[in-house]
Amino acid sequence: MTETSQDTDVVEHRRLVIAGSGIAGLTAAIYAARSNNDPLVFEGDEPGGQLTLTTEVDNYPGFAEGISGPELVTNMKEQAKRFGAEVKHGIITSVDDSDRPFRIELKNGDVYTADAFIAASGASARTLGIPGEDDLMGYGLSTCATCDGAFFRDEKIMVVGGGDAAMEEANFLTKFASKVYLVHRREEFRAEDYWIDRTMEKVDEGKIEIMRNTEVTELHGTPEEGVDHVTLVRHPEGHPTEKLADPEFAGEVEEFDFDVGAVFYAIGHTPNTAYLEGTGVRMDDEGYIRTEGGSGGGQTATDVEGLFGAGDVVDYHYQQAVTAGGMGSKAAIDADDYLEELERKTAKQAEPAAAESDD
Amino acid sequence: MTETSQDTDVVEHRRLVIAGSGIAGLTAAIYAARSNNDPLVFEGDEPGGQLTLTTEVDNYPGFAEGISGPELVTNMKEQAKRFGAEVKHGIITSVDDSDRPFRIELKNGDVYTADAFIAASGASARTLGIPGEDDLMGYGLSTCATCDGAFFRDEKIMVVGGGDAAMEEANFLTKFASKVYLVHRREEFRAEDYWIDRTMEKVDEGKIEIMRNTEVTELHGTPEEGVDHVTLVRHPEGHPTEKLADPEFAGEVEEFDFDVGAVFYAIGHTPNTAYLEGTGVRMDDEGYIRTEGGSGGGQTATDVEGLFGAGDVVDYHYQQAVTAGGMGSKAAIDADDYLEELERKTAKQAEPAAAESDD
Repeated sequence: MTETSQDTDVVEHRRLVIAGSGIAGLTAAIYAARSNNDPLVFEGDEPGGQLTLTTEVDNYPGFAEGISGPELVTNMKEQAKRFGAEVKHGIITSVDDSDRPFRIELKNGDVYTADAFIAASGASARTLGIPGEDDLMGYGLSTCATCDGAFFRDEKIMVVGGGDAAMEEANFLTKFASKVYLVHRREEFRAEDYWIDRTMEKVDEGKIEIMRNTEVTELHGTPEEGVDHVTLVRHPEGHPTEKLADPEFAGEVEEFDFDVGAVFYAIGHTPNTAYLEGTGVRMDDEGYIRTEGGSGGGQTATDVEGLFGAGDVVDYHYQQAVTAGGMGSKAAIDADDYLEELERKTAKQAEPAAAESDD
Repeated sequence: MTETSQDTDVVEHRRLVIAGSGIAGLTAAIYAARSNNDPLVFEGDEPGGQLTLTTEVDNYPGFAEGISGPELVTNMKEQAKRFGAEVKHGIITSVDDSDRPFRIELKNGDVYTADAFIAASGASARTLGIPGEDDLMGYGLSTCATCDGAFFRDEKIMVVGGGDAAMEEANFLTKFASKVYLVHRREEFRAEDYWIDRTMEKVDEGKIEIMRNTEVTELHGTPEEGVDHVTLVRHPEGHPTEKLADPEFAGEVEEFDFDVGAVFYAIGHTPNTAYLEGTGVRMDDEGYIRTEGGSGGGQTATDVEGLFGAGDVVDYHYQQAVTAGGMGSKAAIDADDYLEELERKTAKQAEPAAAESDD
């Protein structure tokens, strides 16, 4: 089966491997399959990506009445498979870009090789790193309202964050909660008006209470009994935790306990790029991949030839389903250009050698 | 109704006007409406954009079995309206960016003003500029197989071009034609493999004939009788028309007449940016809008503050439905940031003035 001793542990060689099965990865797979690049998608540890954590996607263009996140992802997966893409369970732990083909190692020890690689591994929910978090994650603390909201019927539920995701989760959780408390460290929200308006309606109805300029500093409870209460800090100018340690604000930061039955984090994401450490892929301070950008072709190129980036692992700003899809499409087209050029070069290198042997 | 003499002809002021109702414009409208930016979309002279000219869209992510172009566009329009976007007939002829709000003039003389503007006016089908074209356009010559293919049942149909669009049109037209002749000026096609493969199957079945390294130089016929035949030139190294005038290739270019009942052009597009002439919007030599790009926010910003670009009017390379959608979403988010900043500035300017009058 294998040709060289080096390759003894290689399960399979593919033209293209895609890391991640969210919107970016699956869109790349649709395009790559249609271009006969035989893509293999590794789902990663969050199959379907962030969108599977969303109940209703209202702003993905093409569905007049909206579509559920999981359904949209399932559709794309079927679409990719229809054109011949393969989607496999598997978590990529490292990519070796020192030689070609790329050597891609999985958590279970399997090794694949690929001529081109698309990093569409997304970004994962961020945590606060406060006491109680590790013990209570999954036991009253969650990063996914859609997944876990229904466990906390008629309880007080706290949502932490001030963006679209926080607003959406707070609104969703009113279905279950006796009341939702939205805790935000600043005065202003960065959510879109649509979500602010909907949230304010719920505030008027008494279903949501907003706690501005407030932060959670500790979670109290047990895995057996869940979250019992939290410790909060508040300062009228926002960012109370920072001010807690600052002598300038001594005595100004209010600290108090607050009873809640569950806490949901919606405070942003961290890009999944640990498996690219040691490669030449350029990243920013937070670990987001830096791609070529600009106009014309090659916008998704990284600093490593043949390795492309798409979706939330690149985009720390817009992070929409349709922007991820757009990038996935671009990455597949860029990869196709690269693979065709690679074939042309390989054919050219083979030619003069053949001519020489004729002499 | 109007407040100043300058505004006597202004029909309405809006926070945001969007030029174009293709995928980019409608996606921008969905997002802008959800952000309470009260968008008004002018459809332009090709309502729904290029996608309405496509029968089946197989690679727009989210529809496992594909969706028709017109249906996808209709869905997006409904979706945008559901959130409060307004879509109107109207062709924008000029934008005045010398002052704010922008002054937007329509072909019918109506004038609108807007605080922000998104140019999503797309690109229109290109023609060859050869004799016979002006007389026969719409009478046997077409740029849209979906629109006009069925008029030419059991006739020989010629398709001009070598990209995805040409292949798709050629395949589609086999439904009607006695035979489809695909004329391409070079040896190699730039279409994706999916389309090349499908075309080659039809070649094997005798339904398509490919004429490589060949160009059309004249169309013969009458508006009454339609296209009768065309004049073709051919050279084995491609681009025969260029070589026709070049003494180096004297006598090498073959010229001959060929009977066909219809001709379909699929030779690319020209960006619709004439209405932006005289503004500060930077464009490339072909008239495509140059946007900021890069990472982070403001990627769709043009050189004119408050004026954003999205879709095929910017993207001369990828030109996919989902890439246009991605850009439309970004433009709406960028415009929202701009409008919020504008409001904040206006509020700030008003404040000290009020304070002064108190003194």
